[in-house]
Amino acid sequence: MRVYGDRLSGNCYKIQLLLHHLGTAHEWVDVDILRGDTRTERFLALNANGKIPVLELDDGRVLPESNAILNYLADGTDFLPDDAWARAQVLAWQFFEQYSHEPAVAVARFIVRYQGTPEARREELARCQARAKDALLVMERHLAGHEFFVGGRMTIADFSLYAYTHVAHEGGVTLEAYPAIRAWLDRVAGHPRHSVMAEGGA
Amino acid sequence: MRVYGDRLSGNCYKIQLLLHHLGTAHEWVDVDILRGDTRTERFLALNANGKIPVLELDDGRVLPESNAILNYLADGTDFLPDDAWARAQVLAWQFFEQYSHEPAVAVARFIVRYQGTPEARREELARCQARAKDALLVMERHLAGHEFFVGGRMTIADFSLYAYTHVAHEGGVTLEAYPAIRAWLDRVAGHPRHSVMAEGGA
Repeated sequence: MRVYGDRLSGNCYKIQLLLHHLGTAHEWVDVDILRGDTRTERFLALNANGKIPVLELDDGRVLPESNAILNYLADGTDFLPDDAWARAQVLAWQFFEQYSHEPAVAVARFIVRYQGTPEARREELARCQARAKDALLVMERHLAGHEFFVGGRMTIADFSLYAYTHVAHEGGVTLEAYPAIRAWLDRVAGHPRHSVMAEGGA
Repeated sequence: MRVYGDRLSGNCYKIQLLLHHLGTAHEWVDVDILRGDTRTERFLALNANGKIPVLELDDGRVLPESNAILNYLADGTDFLPDDAWARAQVLAWQFFEQYSHEPAVAVARFIVRYQGTPEARREELARCQARAKDALLVMERHLAGHEFFVGGRMTIADFSLYAYTHVAHEGGVTLEAYPAIRAWLDRVAGHPRHSVMAEGGA
């Protein structure tokens, strides 16, 4: 299998993290978002939505969307429960991540770290930071009573939320007020098969 | 089972549509977003993220996020394939819906239809409409070669995308340029067990 991804993207890091835990052989094709690699005709033929990551199987079938890829790759492994209710809980946290968390936490970080907070985006940054805090509070309340997001063990729901949460401070959102989140980040990163995000990650 | 939902919300309509197709007995608890029902202490105890819909089982377990609820309710039915690859494709379209489609199509409609396009949101509306067209183009290209989104038959991926697409024009986004989408909307609405969205729906 082949993964098209930008090593600086948190959404791609999720896939890298799971594949490292599973020890799955794969080819990684570097795609540089900032250089416009996702807008080429060749890439748009893979994913008409022009986003990474994209998974390509050896027979040529392709799958976009980081969380859909995680569900496919984790099926039948320890990182995705078999039970329908537990799987639905994993999905609920992943949809929370894509709707309420990533558009706030990841965008704030992009504006601060990669764009140097241009004047034109200051208001948007403040909105992202406020929404990021709301999302972190939802996570904090859950993690205050749970070691991991679903079923008492590490699943792809943790990978999905770890990717941008562990670098939230780079978007001006500190984790000081969220002790349960910090303890959970340490649990995820403390796993013997953990893999760190590339330096300079976006 | 009990569904907490606002009949005017497209995200809640997805659940209503699936339950109607399945003929599943359930209690519907009306929650009025505009009145602030999702910000009460009682509601936040159900879903700390303060969003509808929420599914509550008879034993008190709760599940938020419209697309997670659809996956749980459709498991084992004709509306969700058993095959892991097909399920991943369903998820990919649902994550596309929540990240690239809903925040554009549904928000444009809310600004136009429910707020009467206030001056302060005109720029945001233009951005939403532009992003909505990008999302619709991705759908159009896929539907030009497929009757339904996944596996040649109606699945919860279709319900997820139908909810806000069929009222996109109410946000100033017409479907004239998307004949394949219009034909697909007719196929979904033409099903003998189809259920229409509440009048005045948001």
